[in-house]
Amino acid sequence: MSNSGSEIDRLIQLLARLPGLGPRSARRAALHLIERKDQLLGPLAAAMRDAFDHVVACETCGNIDTASPCHLCTDPRRDPSVIVVVETVGDLWALERAQATSGRYHVLGGTLSPLDGVGPDDLSIPKLLERAGDPAVKEIILAVNATVEGQTTAHYITDMLAGGEVKVSRLAHGVPVGGELDYLDDGTLAAAIRQRQPF
Amino acid sequence: MSNSGSEIDRLIQLLARLPGLGPRSARRAALHLIERKDQLLGPLAAAMRDAFDHVVACETCGNIDTASPCHLCTDPRRDPSVIVVVETVGDLWALERAQATSGRYHVLGGTLSPLDGVGPDDLSIPKLLERAGDPAVKEIILAVNATVEGQTTAHYITDMLAGGEVKVSRLAHGVPVGGELDYLDDGTLAAAIRQRQPF
Repeated sequence: MSNSGSEIDRLIQLLARLPGLGPRSARRAALHLIERKDQLLGPLAAAMRDAFDHVVACETCGNIDTASPCHLCTDPRRDPSVIVVVETVGDLWALERAQATSGRYHVLGGTLSPLDGVGPDDLSIPKLLERAGDPAVKEIILAVNATVEGQTTAHYITDMLAGGEVKVSRLAHGVPVGGELDYLDDGTLAAAIRQRQPF
Repeated sequence: MSNSGSEIDRLIQLLARLPGLGPRSARRAALHLIERKDQLLGPLAAAMRDAFDHVVACETCGNIDTASPCHLCTDPRRDPSVIVVVETVGDLWALERAQATSGRYHVLGGTLSPLDGVGPDDLSIPKLLERAGDPAVKEIILAVNATVEGQTTAHYITDMLAGGEVKVSRLAHGVPVGGELDYLDDGTLAAAIRQRQPF
């Protein structure tokens, strides 16, 4: 690269490791930052340092926050009888943005993948089973992705919870809100008919 | 947003101001960083801090570097008789990557735009005229963009340098290397014919 100064090269190299940025857009981003030193580069450096110093994973649910247990686990307005199981913190954020649930969360940290050597103990499944054993918990909602890996993981968790007191449910399949039938795949259409609701 | 902790929200907000990242990809980037705290978040925070502390604009040519004058202006292997004039530091980097010239550079910092109130003194045109007055300088290559704004700026600089000793040239128009004629615009094709070269 040999731009100008190893500081700039290093900044570009690290920026290029962000998702969505390649070598060219990392160069543009670095220039953008350096041209906005006081408005953007300084504040962003400080924000990253703050996040580095203060952000931790919640030891209960696996969410990331500045406190552990996180603010969702300690919020008294949230329903402690429902645990919504997600694959990633990004999925948790998506559900929170949608205000889709008032339950608590549990972040698995991925999906089971025997071929890649990812077993239950590599995810936070033991911790989930422990939480599910709490008599206050009445329902586990498996909000995992509708992929083969997600569904395999959901089946494993369901098996492990079978015979207990807790109710296990999963997300509904169907037509996305605002979606057009003509553009949907056969599996989704079949599921939407099968799981039709009274009008 | 109300994700988890104002530190994370602030990080997402600032990341979203990078070119090429929107709100959604900024969230993904923030998660990616936090999940790779020691490998990426910490080093990137430090690299930004370093850049903030050490990177300056070269007072001669306007390049950004850790020293002023920059390493290109002080490199004895570069030809001091040629000044390549570019609009932005990004353009300078592009020419350097292509090893297109062994001359020195001059970064204008933009283009003339009377409607937006950008006059010669808002760009580094006075500094360029001063540099062009040095008897060691024999040629000014105007490597500005082939846009209306770029060409207007090039014409202005040419006018200001008219009558002096220094030769003023501009980039050739023509078919990009590897380009197909069928996909080129009429103006480029006409220019390529007009400026045809002996085979």
